[in-house]
Amino acid sequence: MNTFLERYNEYRTVIDSRLSSVIDRDEPVTMYEPARYVLSGGGKRIRPVLTMLACQAAGGDPMDAVEAGVAVEILHNFTLVHDDIMDRADTRRGRETVHRKWDENIAILVGDELMGIAYKTLLNTEKGDVRAITRIFTDGVIEVCEGQSYDKEFENLHSVTEEQYLMMISKKTGWLVAISAEIGAIIGGATTAQRAALVEYARCVGRAFQVQDDFLDVVADEDTLGKPIGGDILEGKKTWLLVNALERAEGEDLALLQRVAGRSAARDGLVAAVTRVYERLGVLDSAREKIAQDTAAAAAALHALEDNEGRSMLGWLAQMLLERKH
Amino acid sequence: MNTFLERYNEYRTVIDSRLSSVIDRDEPVTMYEPARYVLSGGGKRIRPVLTMLACQAAGGDPMDAVEAGVAVEILHNFTLVHDDIMDRADTRRGRETVHRKWDENIAILVGDELMGIAYKTLLNTEKGDVRAITRIFTDGVIEVCEGQSYDKEFENLHSVTEEQYLMMISKKTGWLVAISAEIGAIIGGATTAQRAALVEYARCVGRAFQVQDDFLDVVADEDTLGKPIGGDILEGKKTWLLVNALERAEGEDLALLQRVAGRSAARDGLVAAVTRVYERLGVLDSAREKIAQDTAAAAAALHALEDNEGRSMLGWLAQMLLERKH
Repeated sequence: MNTFLERYNEYRTVIDSRLSSVIDRDEPVTMYEPARYVLSGGGKRIRPVLTMLACQAAGGDPMDAVEAGVAVEILHNFTLVHDDIMDRADTRRGRETVHRKWDENIAILVGDELMGIAYKTLLNTEKGDVRAITRIFTDGVIEVCEGQSYDKEFENLHSVTEEQYLMMISKKTGWLVAISAEIGAIIGGATTAQRAALVEYARCVGRAFQVQDDFLDVVADEDTLGKPIGGDILEGKKTWLLVNALERAEGEDLALLQRVAGRSAARDGLVAAVTRVYERLGVLDSAREKIAQDTAAAAAALHALEDNEGRSMLGWLAQMLLERKH
Repeated sequence: MNTFLERYNEYRTVIDSRLSSVIDRDEPVTMYEPARYVLSGGGKRIRPVLTMLACQAAGGDPMDAVEAGVAVEILHNFTLVHDDIMDRADTRRGRETVHRKWDENIAILVGDELMGIAYKTLLNTEKGDVRAITRIFTDGVIEVCEGQSYDKEFENLHSVTEEQYLMMISKKTGWLVAISAEIGAIIGGATTAQRAALVEYARCVGRAFQVQDDFLDVVADEDTLGKPIGGDILEGKKTWLLVNALERAEGEDLALLQRVAGRSAARDGLVAAVTRVYERLGVLDSAREKIAQDTAAAAAALHALEDNEGRSMLGWLAQMLLERKH
């Protein structure tokens, strides 16, 4: 287990190092100072490590996938900067968001610029069909925007089905995880079957990761999480938990959850009250189960690949994400 | 002359038709309704026509450059949507801006999505080196963001030199015009010399176009322009006119212009007063001269190309832009 973690951290160091050099200009200062701030914000760097591992699992050299992995990570960070404006979020990974630390205009512009830098970095990729890779990356941009758009639309709906929720979240967060693996697979010279297996693995991991995110918002330790507990509840966000709870609840519980979804609930004591409802309805247990199922499905998808270090690392990664606390 | 205009309109119709089909989805509605609104807003479509003409002037088939031209036009429209948020603009081409007609979140997201659609369209290009084309396009994204960033920075400065102004404007508006021609040249199979000539032509046209824009803000007819006269003056925008006037003015004139630049001038009667100062200092004449010079330089650059319809059209286009009233 330890060797896997060491190797993961090794890959992450490569990614962080490249992320710190990817911006090669200083001016305009109001552009590149916040842009550097965003890219130095840390994070698990799951997407770029996944690109490297998918490349390796397909039989390629993981170092060939660094530029593409970094590109997906920059793209991911661009979406966070713009989402934070739209969500009026004050902090991200325990630090002030760009629109709070600077202003909204700067945050809009820095996000746009990061998308440009992401493409520039992607285009450094030397292995694989550059048109195919750039197309998949571009579909990622489009899907992630659609996902955010649905997410904002859902905020104004009284109820959302689990199916709608899963569609939205597969676009908003799952897609980038899936393309991380798919692009890595192409760079590594994957066969069609290998590529499909790696995409399937990533889709399952992405879904588990997202349900886990919704779950941790309720049950995590505040300091470990790096943001206040229950933020999703206070915002009336249609999470996997809320969507499922709404389908199960009756009477007073249902009335409370509807007020949460309609953002008309009194905030005082709300997080604790909703958490109790979640427990009573069994949605926390269901979430645990759903996460475990998707993690198992991710592991199963890997069987289509040859046994090598890349594949073993992917197996370990899915397990590690299942056990994460933030 | 008339044949040129007919051919221009023919190309523009091809572009508009493609722009109307480029979005092939309807949902999420809050995304694609405003996105279609943006792309159906009309405009001169100078950039995509330029891509087609540069391709033709280099000896290629202009129809091969339609996807790339449309991509640059979409990219241009994305920058307008985001710039309008940052500039708090209420109207654009006589219609409500996206953030006014819908809201700011939607405008951010639609801009992001348009960038994705722009790349998707660009990647349909079949002639020319796709990596080279996508790199030039991406540099365009980066430069245009930097240009907007400098523009916003300059709003907070008391004075800006003509050199700084030209640097900013070459990034903010000139760059996309230049890459329109450069990408068309590559698709048309241009030699290195032809490509350089087409880029030089486009740079000159772009600069003339921008000084013309600053000029028309002061002297145009309001209805023809589609927005109120003197908007730049009221906003204290560092235009070519203001920058040059500040370098020439003394005494009371200088004091007034400094208040304009510092956005501390009383708005009442300001546009008329500043226009009189511009006239007295001769900056309106200088602007006319500058536009004519750049237009002549654009025409001169075309000598490096072989004589064909594309080249003739480019010569006519530069002249037509010189004579525009909006």
